[in-house]
Amino acid sequence: MTVTAAQGFLACGVAAGIKESGAPDLALVVNRGPSRAAAGVFTSNRVQAAPVRWSRRVLDDGRLAAVVLNSGGANACTGPTGAGDTRLMAERAAAAVGAAPDEVAVCSTGLIGVLLPIDRVTAGIDAAAAALSPRGGEDAAVAIKTTDSVHKTAVATRSGWTVGGMAKGAGMLAPGLATMLVVLTTDADADAPLLDSALREAVRTTFDRVDSDGCMSTNDTVLLLASGASGTVPEAAEFTEAVHAVCLDLARQLVADAEGASKEIEVAVVGAASERDAVTVGRSVARNNLLKCALHGEDPNWGRVLSAIGTTDALFDPDRLDVAINGVWVCRNGAAGESRDKVDLSGREITVTVDLRSGGESAVVWTNDLTAEYVHENSAYSS
Amino acid sequence: MTVTAAQGFLACGVAAGIKESGAPDLALVVNRGPSRAAAGVFTSNRVQAAPVRWSRRVLDDGRLAAVVLNSGGANACTGPTGAGDTRLMAERAAAAVGAAPDEVAVCSTGLIGVLLPIDRVTAGIDAAAAALSPRGGEDAAVAIKTTDSVHKTAVATRSGWTVGGMAKGAGMLAPGLATMLVVLTTDADADAPLLDSALREAVRTTFDRVDSDGCMSTNDTVLLLASGASGTVPEAAEFTEAVHAVCLDLARQLVADAEGASKEIEVAVVGAASERDAVTVGRSVARNNLLKCALHGEDPNWGRVLSAIGTTDALFDPDRLDVAINGVWVCRNGAAGESRDKVDLSGREITVTVDLRSGGESAVVWTNDLTAEYVHENSAYSS
Repeated sequence: MTVTAAQGFLACGVAAGIKESGAPDLALVVNRGPSRAAAGVFTSNRVQAAPVRWSRRVLDDGRLAAVVLNSGGANACTGPTGAGDTRLMAERAAAAVGAAPDEVAVCSTGLIGVLLPIDRVTAGIDAAAAALSPRGGEDAAVAIKTTDSVHKTAVATRSGWTVGGMAKGAGMLAPGLATMLVVLTTDADADAPLLDSALREAVRTTFDRVDSDGCMSTNDTVLLLASGASGTVPEAAEFTEAVHAVCLDLARQLVADAEGASKEIEVAVVGAASERDAVTVGRSVARNNLLKCALHGEDPNWGRVLSAIGTTDALFDPDRLDVAINGVWVCRNGAAGESRDKVDLSGREITVTVDLRSGGESAVVWTNDLTAEYVHENSAYSS
Repeated sequence: MTVTAAQGFLACGVAAGIKESGAPDLALVVNRGPSRAAAGVFTSNRVQAAPVRWSRRVLDDGRLAAVVLNSGGANACTGPTGAGDTRLMAERAAAAVGAAPDEVAVCSTGLIGVLLPIDRVTAGIDAAAAALSPRGGEDAAVAIKTTDSVHKTAVATRSGWTVGGMAKGAGMLAPGLATMLVVLTTDADADAPLLDSALREAVRTTFDRVDSDGCMSTNDTVLLLASGASGTVPEAAEFTEAVHAVCLDLARQLVADAEGASKEIEVAVVGAASERDAVTVGRSVARNNLLKCALHGEDPNWGRVLSAIGTTDALFDPDRLDVAINGVWVCRNGAAGESRDKVDLSGREITVTVDLRSGGESAVVWTNDLTAEYVHENSAYSS
């Protein structure tokens, strides 16, 4: 049920003809209220797609009535025409659902630098508005897929209210958000400041710690809409926890479905002097192409882990670094520890643990292995 | 003739049995003087191999009598035993060539985290010392290869003196030096301060701007030894230019021979507000896996260039960025420019030009495409 798991929301997904394949490519999510509070987090890339610029602006007042999303084209690096097309999408969706244009967020994903077939998109919005349903969440999740092999949804129900969501993302997954579009909805009666703080806290330790290929998108967007339809004002801590749980679930699904990946790698950094140090080291390890190749080949190459740690400015002593791969401490005190032969890397999930032995802070960063399939997908697919 | 192109140097390369293949794996370079001035630049990785720690220390006084180099093992992350092995190598080489141990630099390359077969190494040093020759430069260059498909040498002759050198490096090529060992020699009568300034200036715009796979090694070393045997004191500017020319030649050879690569990519950033901005943008573009895949697939995907630029803090306006691929300005003002169809990417060499339109500074960074062969080499070869 995804974005329609919470009360007060309608959604749908249709094929508007944006994708040449004829697959579903346009989704609409509508908040029927009574509240229209909303929050959003966007890519930190300075090259931002037209829909990101638009949605960031319309969220200034903490209110959204609807979100229109399309796959099949990112509408990024498309100049004034692209900006106009985003405005047209918002206006058409607003008219169709009885809202103002500046109450409608727009999300686009697909090829950068190409204009959308705007006539098809606007006709698709009309068709989507006519097909809205309180059970349309799955169709919406399917319609935002690009190279995703599966659609991604998650739901958490707490004290009388629910948080649900959908996500797309399969490549260009990196911090400052993965290449992804995420829409979360809740029927909790949460105001915009709570939505904003809960969303930022959740994103910071979930989507922002996914680093599949080090590449940051121009279109990343995470939205959270509250209808208040449950009539329950949530307790802030419980609400924040629920939003985090849904984000974490979706983030893990993004990693599991990353383009061409055969391994899901969790880089857990412990013993750090600060959380910032832990994240810095985690990202450096997660981005190391040589390590990602080694793990693909099921080689517990801890030397490449140390090389990656050494490029950071985190607090550590090179002669006191410990590294475990799948629980085997193959590196102790910056040199060989337990036998590499004890490490079993045959499974899909791999954990690399780095102990900086410099403090009590920790962080986890998720990534994938680097495979010939990744190269193939990204040299053959223009995105 | 490489390191023996300049007068006053002896060299050789032998098979010491470090590599299981039986290929040459130990080299010796000896400066017969009359001068023994020297300079060095080392990896900026904080995890540094024992030979790097040693060589950095012995170069404190700006003098070297010899360099002993081995492939087949990096002697990195090997603890106190590894440090002792490096010292043994210096002592043995010093004894064999009639120098003090602290006049001998040590360079190692190969697998991280594994101890060297030190008995074979020291026996190899004795054999190498017996085989030293004024024509041994080529053999030395061959003996330091790891996954290099060819050995790399370069020579520049100027006003009565010569600079020559050898390099190895094929993967883990990234700024703060590529994974590489480089030994340069000259018969110019240059003192240590001139050697140091010329070497730093040359490395800064050559080896430090090679970014093949974003991975920084624990062992990178560039040494410059002067014998003074030409009897000519070089003019500083001419000497700096000659060292730069040899470094640039070797750096380009490293990129040309990078593991698994099928394209040599020059990222030229112009119109930058500062050289630092130009380098930052160049590195970000050069490290973008998605772009490297696209260029491998001969897809002039300028959207991925813009995505990479957008992750930097360089001065630019996203709506005024221009990008050319092989001379075709496919992106103008942050949006589509000339037709992608005009871009011919069938050749091995590709130039990506980024015009930030924010100033008069520029920089070039060299990288490679990302290929299935890179993944294969680095998942199957433990290094």
